[in-house]
Amino acid sequence: MNNARGDKGLSKFEVDTEYQRLKSLGLTINMARGIPSPAQIQLSQALLSLSLGNDYMTADGVDSRNYGGQIGVLEARRLFAPMVGIPESQIVVGGNSSLAMMYECLAQAWRRGTPDSQVPWSQEPDGIAFICIVPGYDRHFAMCEDFGIRMISVPMLQDGPDMERVRSLVANDPSIKGIWCVPKYSNPTGTTYSPEVVEALASMPTAAADFRIFWDNAYAVHPLAEVDQPLADLYSRCEVHGHASRALIFASTSKMTLPGAGMAMFGASPANIDWWVKAAMLRSVGPDKVNQVRQVRFLKSIENIEYLMEQHRVLLKPKFDRVDQVFQERLGGLGIASWTRPAGGYFVSLQVQAGTAKRVVELASGVGLTFSSPGSCFPYGIDPDDSQLRLAPSYPELDELTLALEIIATCVIKASLDRQVAH
Amino acid sequence: MNNARGDKGLSKFEVDTEYQRLKSLGLTINMARGIPSPAQIQLSQALLSLSLGNDYMTADGVDSRNYGGQIGVLEARRLFAPMVGIPESQIVVGGNSSLAMMYECLAQAWRRGTPDSQVPWSQEPDGIAFICIVPGYDRHFAMCEDFGIRMISVPMLQDGPDMERVRSLVANDPSIKGIWCVPKYSNPTGTTYSPEVVEALASMPTAAADFRIFWDNAYAVHPLAEVDQPLADLYSRCEVHGHASRALIFASTSKMTLPGAGMAMFGASPANIDWWVKAAMLRSVGPDKVNQVRQVRFLKSIENIEYLMEQHRVLLKPKFDRVDQVFQERLGGLGIASWTRPAGGYFVSLQVQAGTAKRVVELASGVGLTFSSPGSCFPYGIDPDDSQLRLAPSYPELDELTLALEIIATCVIKASLDRQVAH
Repeated sequence: MNNARGDKGLSKFEVDTEYQRLKSLGLTINMARGIPSPAQIQLSQALLSLSLGNDYMTADGVDSRNYGGQIGVLEARRLFAPMVGIPESQIVVGGNSSLAMMYECLAQAWRRGTPDSQVPWSQEPDGIAFICIVPGYDRHFAMCEDFGIRMISVPMLQDGPDMERVRSLVANDPSIKGIWCVPKYSNPTGTTYSPEVVEALASMPTAAADFRIFWDNAYAVHPLAEVDQPLADLYSRCEVHGHASRALIFASTSKMTLPGAGMAMFGASPANIDWWVKAAMLRSVGPDKVNQVRQVRFLKSIENIEYLMEQHRVLLKPKFDRVDQVFQERLGGLGIASWTRPAGGYFVSLQVQAGTAKRVVELASGVGLTFSSPGSCFPYGIDPDDSQLRLAPSYPELDELTLALEIIATCVIKASLDRQVAH
Repeated sequence: MNNARGDKGLSKFEVDTEYQRLKSLGLTINMARGIPSPAQIQLSQALLSLSLGNDYMTADGVDSRNYGGQIGVLEARRLFAPMVGIPESQIVVGGNSSLAMMYECLAQAWRRGTPDSQVPWSQEPDGIAFICIVPGYDRHFAMCEDFGIRMISVPMLQDGPDMERVRSLVANDPSIKGIWCVPKYSNPTGTTYSPEVVEALASMPTAAADFRIFWDNAYAVHPLAEVDQPLADLYSRCEVHGHASRALIFASTSKMTLPGAGMAMFGASPANIDWWVKAAMLRSVGPDKVNQVRQVRFLKSIENIEYLMEQHRVLLKPKFDRVDQVFQERLGGLGIASWTRPAGGYFVSLQVQAGTAKRVVELASGVGLTFSSPGSCFPYGIDPDDSQLRLAPSYPELDELTLALEIIATCVIKASLDRQVAH
């Protein structure tokens, strides 16, 4: 966090004048979600004309065009393995969405239980709960809400979740069945879990025998800094501590190649993989293997992926730098806001004065800018302090982004001043 | 059905000798499932090198490469519309599997209920039931079994399900929430529902307000005869009778283009589509739109699809003719077997003497031929008469198919003779 500090303030009159000027521009800008820009997508443009020709057999001798192959093609499982630290035999490559694979794990545990469950999660007499690190990823929380899973907020610290709190919760409450984690360049704070945090998650005793860590490694190879932050392998640490089935690992190529047309993976213990495959066979004859082959032929190797991701980084870095620069210029020294300078991922977390986050979004909306849903990074969409906002600077071009950031800064100041006047 | 008739028999000695000869060949043939042959897949080979180039925008102006577009691209919805008789605005195009879309409808009704449900299907105090037309599609029945949904068998007649039985069941039992239908060139009997049957399904009163017809139109454009059999539009008939939300329509391009890499659709009333989209948004950011655009650019139009399907027909027809020919030669006139001569679809249903179907499969397996799972076309895998077998002649080449059919015929005769001896 870069805490705003100093004393250069603007008068309420100046801010209101600036707000009216922005309003008169008649803008329509939407930067609400973490979407790769057209320039980033263009990096994988070759995928659209990549021809398989007559070379449609997979590395394990399967006709990629025909039915079958529930676990995905060998070369795709092999490509993901070093990225997520799980043997290729324990990886399933599915369709275009890792979120869908998380959902299926949750839905299957809900209706049938995990391999370690006494009863399906839906049948637990007192209901079940998940730990949600806050601020966190809204789509994870939305799933829990839809299933009627109780959510317990635990704050994100500098090196990952507050593990003292997590440890004490899971040790004592058998209704806590899971935890949502975005362990690297976390959404929205950009935090990478330290080796100690990963070790604590892998080793901690849990009251529930069927406790699961939903490890959404969405930004496994997505640094913004020149040096990538390492993340310890959760699976192997869980295995060491005799909790191999605790780890459910997810990743995808959505933010490497084409966001809508990538491939997603699920990695876990052999028992969990068997459980997955048995359920998957009921749902479908198998994933789109042709697209998997196409993706692998384009991505080639982990080294080539790193090269591709460096090109993404070059496109993304100036946008994240611009966030910091504009906020420094406009908000630095006012003592009313702080923001993250993430070393990777897709988001900046902006902390404004308590009780003003909703108002900031409302003010921005009045100028034609949609940039955040206040509360969306918290369970049930409720930020108890009404102070956190998520920014996604990836999609807009620099000029538009700069304008958007100036609007946000103005709205942050105006909301703060309006509040002072009201009090 | 072509009933075997006549009097040309073989002695038990002759049949046993033939069986031993077949056994000595050391064969391994698997024709258990309805899989398109390599020659059929080759018809869509151009898909593997079809380049989108820089033309990646959809008909409704969306970047197919990026996130979003939960209902699928306009041109894909437009392509399916005339095939299934539903407006494009009421069609969702998803991933590569229509089975997955059926599963999601079932899972969502189970966990949350349909738009017309008082409570989720899983919360009905006495459980729920589905009507299963027999013989039918094993994957439909497997889903019901997994969910713990009671299955009520209703026989398939010449023109569709026994509607007197269906009507009486659904009128009186509010726990009956659905019926599985493969309405055209049905799996495995090849039956196409008559307009009267479709009308009866659309108009019949049901005790359950949230009754649903799972209309798996897998063979919508898959004739084997020169003239395609028409199928009445279920949706519009349901609408006429004030039951618009009763119809859940599914189809895919799996058996038009590439079986593993096609696109699937779900069509239904606006209320059902809203219900679907709300659930889908929880699961994923959207389907693979790039593949949808690719499929549409390859398939082009309904007229072009018909042209493509005619090429499929030319490849499939000789195989189905061969089934009839070999069975006529070997089984005709023996009075121990009858079989269908389907006008479309992927299967032949073989009726053998009661109590011998399992034995036929066992004998064939002893010779190295896997061709059918006895009972698989019935709920819980139990054929009460042990007399029905499903054949899938699409995959093997003609020579191998002929050999397989000769083996099956020999096994049918041997099982029948063995049984006579035993009695």
